[in-house]
Amino acid sequence: MKAIRLNLKKRSYGIIIGSNIIGLLGSCLKKLNIGTDAYVITNARIKNKYGAKVSKSLKAAGINLKFKLVADTEKSKSIASLSGVIEDIVDFDKKRKIFIIAFGGGVIGDLAGFVASIYKRGIPYVQVPTTLLAQVDSSIGGKTAVDLTQGKNLVGAFYQPKVVFSDLGLLKSLEIRQLRSGLAEVIKYGIIKDPKLFVYLEKRHKDIFKCNARALLNIVWRSSLIKARIVEQDEREEKGLRTILNFGHTLGHAIEAAAGFKKYNHGEAIALGMLLACDIGRELGLTGNKTCIRIERLIKAAGLPARIKKIPVNNIIKAYYRDKKFIGARNRLVLIRNIGRTKIVENIPLELIKKVLRGRI
Amino acid sequence: MKAIRLNLKKRSYGIIIGSNIIGLLGSCLKKLNIGTDAYVITNARIKNKYGAKVSKSLKAAGINLKFKLVADTEKSKSIASLSGVIEDIVDFDKKRKIFIIAFGGGVIGDLAGFVASIYKRGIPYVQVPTTLLAQVDSSIGGKTAVDLTQGKNLVGAFYQPKVVFSDLGLLKSLEIRQLRSGLAEVIKYGIIKDPKLFVYLEKRHKDIFKCNARALLNIVWRSSLIKARIVEQDEREEKGLRTILNFGHTLGHAIEAAAGFKKYNHGEAIALGMLLACDIGRELGLTGNKTCIRIERLIKAAGLPARIKKIPVNNIIKAYYRDKKFIGARNRLVLIRNIGRTKIVENIPLELIKKVLRGRI
Repeated sequence: MKAIRLNLKKRSYGIIIGSNIIGLLGSCLKKLNIGTDAYVITNARIKNKYGAKVSKSLKAAGINLKFKLVADTEKSKSIASLSGVIEDIVDFDKKRKIFIIAFGGGVIGDLAGFVASIYKRGIPYVQVPTTLLAQVDSSIGGKTAVDLTQGKNLVGAFYQPKVVFSDLGLLKSLEIRQLRSGLAEVIKYGIIKDPKLFVYLEKRHKDIFKCNARALLNIVWRSSLIKARIVEQDEREEKGLRTILNFGHTLGHAIEAAAGFKKYNHGEAIALGMLLACDIGRELGLTGNKTCIRIERLIKAAGLPARIKKIPVNNIIKAYYRDKKFIGARNRLVLIRNIGRTKIVENIPLELIKKVLRGRI
Repeated sequence: MKAIRLNLKKRSYGIIIGSNIIGLLGSCLKKLNIGTDAYVITNARIKNKYGAKVSKSLKAAGINLKFKLVADTEKSKSIASLSGVIEDIVDFDKKRKIFIIAFGGGVIGDLAGFVASIYKRGIPYVQVPTTLLAQVDSSIGGKTAVDLTQGKNLVGAFYQPKVVFSDLGLLKSLEIRQLRSGLAEVIKYGIIKDPKLFVYLEKRHKDIFKCNARALLNIVWRSSLIKARIVEQDEREEKGLRTILNFGHTLGHAIEAAAGFKKYNHGEAIALGMLLACDIGRELGLTGNKTCIRIERLIKAAGLPARIKKIPVNNIIKAYYRDKKFIGARNRLVLIRNIGRTKIVENIPLELIKKVLRGRI
């Protein structure tokens, strides 16, 4: 078991990482002293698998709980779903000392965190992420949001949890494709900040797919540490420091959106985005050929895509310009010099972006 | 013209108060440098009266604008209204540097501020309050919220504006009942913090109803100053310092709710709440009889009610216990020792509360 402290003055919190630690959740929450009544937002699959364990652990710590099931899809991040959850909370919250547990992947974490931020102008919540992607990325840093029909994550808040409780044992029940999607973010951390993590992944990616406890602990810990240190320096994405976390994401999101969020999951899309960022860096003379080759080799070894399937370049470009990151700002991408060294580059010629897209179709 | 600085480190802002200053709004916003495209949330009545002036002032400062009209009722604070406004903003917000202007009374300020807090995880907004109540109270301090069917203000955020711009000239078009409602809050400030303000109101309340510019400037300035200093010390109502602002509000809200938010407006209800708090204080030997008499005399002179019309005591008591301020906490009221000195008292016997209610029916 490992613990990381994320320092944000009054909003500081711990990130607890370990194998088969879900039984310790109750005592962890009791120590935090954030309330006696847990409103657990999750989905049916997770509740069926782990609901009884969570329930037992919380009750043993003197914490009442209610499970609220939401659909296991992005639809749970709609305004309609949001208001349904909040109205249900009001009914639960009678003479209680309530807090929220986000028990699920990124969708549930985003929804539950946003609910916690706005209900009664903010109540405590904790993240219990159940996917690799959520454990290494979305559960840390307090970015919460829901979607509008016009676009994803357009409504939200920066609102920090009281703890992130990552049980690696929960990852065993993930589909391989979900594990790979999370691994894409781990690879990203290696590329932007941690050459040793990158080398570790090159050597040990097979152990990860076997859910080897030590390998998982190592990658989740190192990734969480990187994310935590960046969030500490730039909590609200005002200083541009948090920008490097977007490596692979700008073009990745455009691909996800152009494919109607169906063909690719998040990790697959950002794997493509990272490769495209390498391609652009190579064209600009910024990224060495060897670096590009190592990254592509690792992405392929992780079972992530290296080529874009049947999406017209123009659709990707359109989605790219619709991205909210551009509004009021110039076109800007995170590129890399080497494994571990990023460079933010603005005003990349559209023709170059089109060229590298064509090269991967 | 007067200006107050509300100090909250990075979230500090100014409160500008003056007569017929709406023409200066554009240059004030330009100096703030918060954006080039204003999304002005207001209602039809205000837009008809002052829309052209605002438009001229902003355009002269190089700021584009769009008016968004919402209904002039509490219904504008529904989740449905909220999502309507946000979807409309997305359509306006194309390659722009957008900010929001809350141009109206408390309902519009609460809605617009909350929209600003959650759209893209927070965009700048300014308060241009058009009622006395909003100028002295709701526009200052960043408390924003919308309602649920189950209760008012259950969803919201603490989110500070970039400026509060109070034009006293706008108050001339208010109905006398609205002016009185705002005056109830001014009387509250006098009672809880400012004996000189209280004496001023005793002497000059007639000038206020005539919208005498100097009298309005004096009461809005002193009230804003008190509110600002309290907010500075307890921005998120965590330290209990902001609690004294609830003087008259706990029982006042219960009366408002028990009357279905129809019989009494906010100021009228809190006038009753303040008198009931005096009654309780007197019964407990805390508040002197002379103080009670002075307060009741001023409230009556301001045209505010001193007796509760046809609401069963039990309905008020039920609403009182439903109030969100009690969840997880004990029954607690702000009472007074003298004009200018408050005392927070917990566990007031229910029988005593019933007794003073009966005494005012």
